[in-house]
Amino acid sequence: MEELKERIRREGRNLGRGILKVDSFINHQVDPVLTMAVGQELALRFQDGSITKVVTAEISGIAPAFTTALALGVPVVYARKSKPITMPEEVYRETAPSHTKLKMVELFISPEVLGPEDRVLVVDDFLASGRTIDALVRLVGRAGAELVGIGAVIEKLFEGGRKRLEELGVPIEAVVTITDMSNGQISFAD
Amino acid sequence: MEELKERIRREGRNLGRGILKVDSFINHQVDPVLTMAVGQELALRFQDGSITKVVTAEISGIAPAFTTALALGVPVVYARKSKPITMPEEVYRETAPSHTKLKMVELFISPEVLGPEDRVLVVDDFLASGRTIDALVRLVGRAGAELVGIGAVIEKLFEGGRKRLEELGVPIEAVVTITDMSNGQISFAD
Repeated sequence: MEELKERIRREGRNLGRGILKVDSFINHQVDPVLTMAVGQELALRFQDGSITKVVTAEISGIAPAFTTALALGVPVVYARKSKPITMPEEVYRETAPSHTKLKMVELFISPEVLGPEDRVLVVDDFLASGRTIDALVRLVGRAGAELVGIGAVIEKLFEGGRKRLEELGVPIEAVVTITDMSNGQISFAD
Repeated sequence: MEELKERIRREGRNLGRGILKVDSFINHQVDPVLTMAVGQELALRFQDGSITKVVTAEISGIAPAFTTALALGVPVVYARKSKPITMPEEVYRETAPSHTKLKMVELFISPEVLGPEDRVLVVDDFLASGRTIDALVRLVGRAGAELVGIGAVIEKLFEGGRKRLEELGVPIEAVVTITDMSNGQISFAD
């Protein structure tokens, strides 16, 4: 999607060590119009999947997963990182290493909102190492739901997430793919 | 908004001690169509405010603040509860007591996304004690931006937040207002 690439070129910052700063339009300030276009694009790529639910992780996955779900006409579920008092005792629970790799984060989904009848598209803002998405996929499995595909707004191909997730045997789609961030540059796949 | 009231009547659960469980359509699973209608309703109530930015707090404020911002045609900023590595050193920072009242949570906004030129609508899913919204208002003040109004999806009138925030002198709008949750009931304002 040229619009998103252009925005990353203009406002994205390569902070080194693979860190892409996009918090003026994706994960602190959010551009609703761009995010709607991103959701429509992801929905288009999975429109034949008979998806019943989009699953993401709080926090920065929420906006793009919301617009994808809106375009698909299904609900979105965001896995919680802490268990709210409104959740039942028995929940699906998985862990994933956090960005900093210094600690593990927990992810919770209530059985009240995901079950064996669901066909799930997992969506997140970034596909990097793939570890958060992998934890979401395991949550989908625990619920007995079927994983239909994985969608990301921005893929950092060089971090190996696609390789990790490919063995799941479902389509993996990114709206834009970054192939290289060494030497301060931001190179796109096409 | 009758649609939201009806949904709360049907799916909301009064768990006692003022706790309303709405995680099948607002804050765990989200209904995108209902949330779009909520955003349109809040935008309508503030359409004359020349708003330039909607500000909310992660996590469950994101979806309704996003749809409100979309309807107003402005960006949305969600205050972070932990400071990501992509944020600059100098940020606006405020604290608010968490739901459980057992600890304080920090809220961060980067000066890169909010400044003196902004006219701000603060939006959150719940207006209860008003303490989270009050912290967001203080962040808006620190940025030198002008607070134009406060919007909430669900107000729990009996928790006193409106009283706390009224002295700010800006319009406070809730899509639905709950007046009483004692004795297991859920009573609406009209």
